[in-house]
Amino acid sequence: MTDSDTVSPPDPDIAVAARARQANLTKPPGSLGRLEALSVWVSSCQGVCPPRQFERARVVVFAGDHGVAAAGVSAYPAEVTAQMVANFDAGGAAINVLAEAAGATVRVVDIAVDADEPLTASIGAHRVRRSSGNIAVEDALTDGEVAAALDAGRRIADEEVDSGADILIVGDMGIGNTTPATTLIAALTDSEPVAVVGRGTGVDDAGWARKTAAIRDALFRSRGSTGDPVALLRVCGGADLAAMAGFCAQAAVRRTPLLLDGVVVTAAALVAEELAPGAKQWWQAGHRSTEPAHALALRRLELEPIVDLQMRLGEGTGAAIALSVVRAAVATLSSMATFDEAGITSSPEKR
Amino acid sequence: MTDSDTVSPPDPDIAVAARARQANLTKPPGSLGRLEALSVWVSSCQGVCPPRQFERARVVVFAGDHGVAAAGVSAYPAEVTAQMVANFDAGGAAINVLAEAAGATVRVVDIAVDADEPLTASIGAHRVRRSSGNIAVEDALTDGEVAAALDAGRRIADEEVDSGADILIVGDMGIGNTTPATTLIAALTDSEPVAVVGRGTGVDDAGWARKTAAIRDALFRSRGSTGDPVALLRVCGGADLAAMAGFCAQAAVRRTPLLLDGVVVTAAALVAEELAPGAKQWWQAGHRSTEPAHALALRRLELEPIVDLQMRLGEGTGAAIALSVVRAAVATLSSMATFDEAGITSSPEKR
Repeated sequence: MTDSDTVSPPDPDIAVAARARQANLTKPPGSLGRLEALSVWVSSCQGVCPPRQFERARVVVFAGDHGVAAAGVSAYPAEVTAQMVANFDAGGAAINVLAEAAGATVRVVDIAVDADEPLTASIGAHRVRRSSGNIAVEDALTDGEVAAALDAGRRIADEEVDSGADILIVGDMGIGNTTPATTLIAALTDSEPVAVVGRGTGVDDAGWARKTAAIRDALFRSRGSTGDPVALLRVCGGADLAAMAGFCAQAAVRRTPLLLDGVVVTAAALVAEELAPGAKQWWQAGHRSTEPAHALALRRLELEPIVDLQMRLGEGTGAAIALSVVRAAVATLSSMATFDEAGITSSPEKR
Repeated sequence: MTDSDTVSPPDPDIAVAARARQANLTKPPGSLGRLEALSVWVSSCQGVCPPRQFERARVVVFAGDHGVAAAGVSAYPAEVTAQMVANFDAGGAAINVLAEAAGATVRVVDIAVDADEPLTASIGAHRVRRSSGNIAVEDALTDGEVAAALDAGRRIADEEVDSGADILIVGDMGIGNTTPATTLIAALTDSEPVAVVGRGTGVDDAGWARKTAAIRDALFRSRGSTGDPVALLRVCGGADLAAMAGFCAQAAVRRTPLLLDGVVVTAAALVAEELAPGAKQWWQAGHRSTEPAHALALRRLELEPIVDLQMRLGEGTGAAIALSVVRAAVATLSSMATFDEAGITSSPEKR
C-alpha cells in the first residue's frame, strides 16, 4: 500500500464535545444506550457537533464468482450471481428494498462475475477478471489481479466519496463467496475449519461437508501466507473480496463512516485492517449474522454488531437495517432539547 | 371487562399466504431471519398479503406520577414528569426525535401527573387523578379509579384507531414509575424483589435499597391479589399503568398491531394479557431494556425483543427504533421480486 493509505482517527476533540452534548440532552445520562455511542462516533467522523443527518447514504454491492462453487459448496448454482446482478439493477432484491427503507441508494459493481460480459458497461467498469480460482486446488488470483482488485475497491470508494456519499455500506453477492471469506477469517484468526464453517445460503449436510473440506484444503494451501494479507487474498481470497478490502480501507482514508455487513464483508474488512491499521475506527458492525466465522472476525476487529436479527443474506442487508439505527442516533444528538433549553430539572448530579 | 374485550387472532390464512410469498422472494428461504417473521405477522394483522406499509404510525406516551417517588426511589424529583410533558408537547424529547426518524407521530396524555392542572385541556382530556398513591404504604388507586383508568386507555386506543392509526407504540413517562411496574411484574411472575429491581433512570445504591424496600412492602400489601389483575392495579399499580393496560388490550380488540417498549409498558401489557387473553398476538416487543424485570415480563409473554441497544429511557423510544425494523420487514414482503418475476434459478428444493 502507498502513503495515501495512512488512516487518521476520527476527531477526538469533537468526540469529547459530542459526549458532553449527549449528557445535557433531556434524558438520564446513558439511558439511550448504544445510540449515544453511535451519535458520538458519527459526530467525530464528521468532525462537527452536533452531527449532520446523512444526505447521501450509499450501498455498494460487490459481485463476484468463485471457482470453488464447482466443488458443490453452495445450495445454488453459479449462474445465480449474474441473475442477481440483474435483479439489483432492476431494483427487485432485498438490498434495494431495505436500502430504500433506510434512505440509501444502491450501486452494484461486477468485480468478477462468471459471465462473458458484465450486465452493463457501467456495472463492469471495475471488473478484474471472470470468476476467481478454485481455492481448494489453486490460487484465487495472481499477484497482479490482487493489486488490480484492491485498486478497483479504492477507486470505487473514491468515486462514491467524491460524489458526496457521507456514509457507506458494503454488500456482497456471489455464489460460493462464504467459502473464501471463511477461509480468510480462519487463516487470520488461526481457527479450525470445523469451528468456522456455516451454512451460507443454506447448504445441506453433504454440501457442508464439501465446504469444510474445501476450506481445509485452502487453509493448507495458505500456510506460510498468514502474516501477509496480500498473499492471503491471492491464495485463498478472490477478486471481489480484495476489492471490498480496498474499499473498506479507502473509506477510512477518506474519513467516511462505513457500515459492515455479514461474514463476507467482514472477512474483507479483517484484511483491510491489516493493510491499513486503524481503519476500523471508521467502521461499525451493522449486524450479527448467523455464520460462525462472522463472530470470530468481529471479535478480532473489536466491533459489536448494532442489530442481531438472525439474518444471513449478505448484499448489505444487515447493514441497511443498522443504518436506520445510526440515523436515529444522529437525530437524538442533533435534534433533542437540552435540559436548559427545555427548562427541566437537570441530571441528578446537578441538583 | 365486557364482551367487547374479546380478542380474535390475526388472520391465520393470510399468515400462510404471507409465508408462501416470503419463500418465493429472491433470496434463500429464511435468510432474512426475524424480518421474515415480522413481515408475516404484519400481513396477518392487516389481513392482507402482501402487507401495506404503515401510513399512520402513532406513539402514545402515558404520563403519570407515583406517590412512591416520595420514598426516594428515583434519581429525579417528581416535578420532572410535568416538565417532560411540556418537552413532549414542544417536540424536544427523545421520543419526538426518534418517532420522526421512524415515520411516526407522538401524542402525550396526562393520566395522573402531579400538577394542579394538565398542560393543556387536550393532553388532560383523559386525566384520572393527580398522581397515584404511595404503594409502599397505601393503595395506588380506588376501584373506581382503576376502572376509570382502564377505560381511559381503551378510549384513547379507540380514538387512535378511529383516526386511522395502523400501528401503535406505547410509551411511558413518570418519575418513580419503574417501582410500581417492577412490583406488578414481581407479583405476576412470583419473583423476589432483589431479582427484579433495576436502576430505573439511574438511581444510586442508597436509592436502589430504598426502591427494593418499597417494592418489598408493596408486594407484601399485594398478597392475596395476585390472581386478580384489577386488584393488583389498585393495590400496587397506578393510573398510568392501568390506562396503558387498557390501551394494549383495546389495540388487540381493534385488531391493530402494537409495539411494546420497556419495563413500564411491558408490566402494563402483562396485566392486559390477563384481562384480555390472546391480546399478545397483536404485540411485538420493541426492545430489550436493561431493567431486570423487563426480561421476566417478556419471558412470561413469550415475546422476543426486536433490538437490544442497552436503552432504558422509556417514552416509547425502544419501540420507535423497532418500528424502523418492522417497516423494513413489511417492505421486503411488499416490494421484493419473486424468483419467477426476476427470472432467477429458484430455491434449491426446486432445482
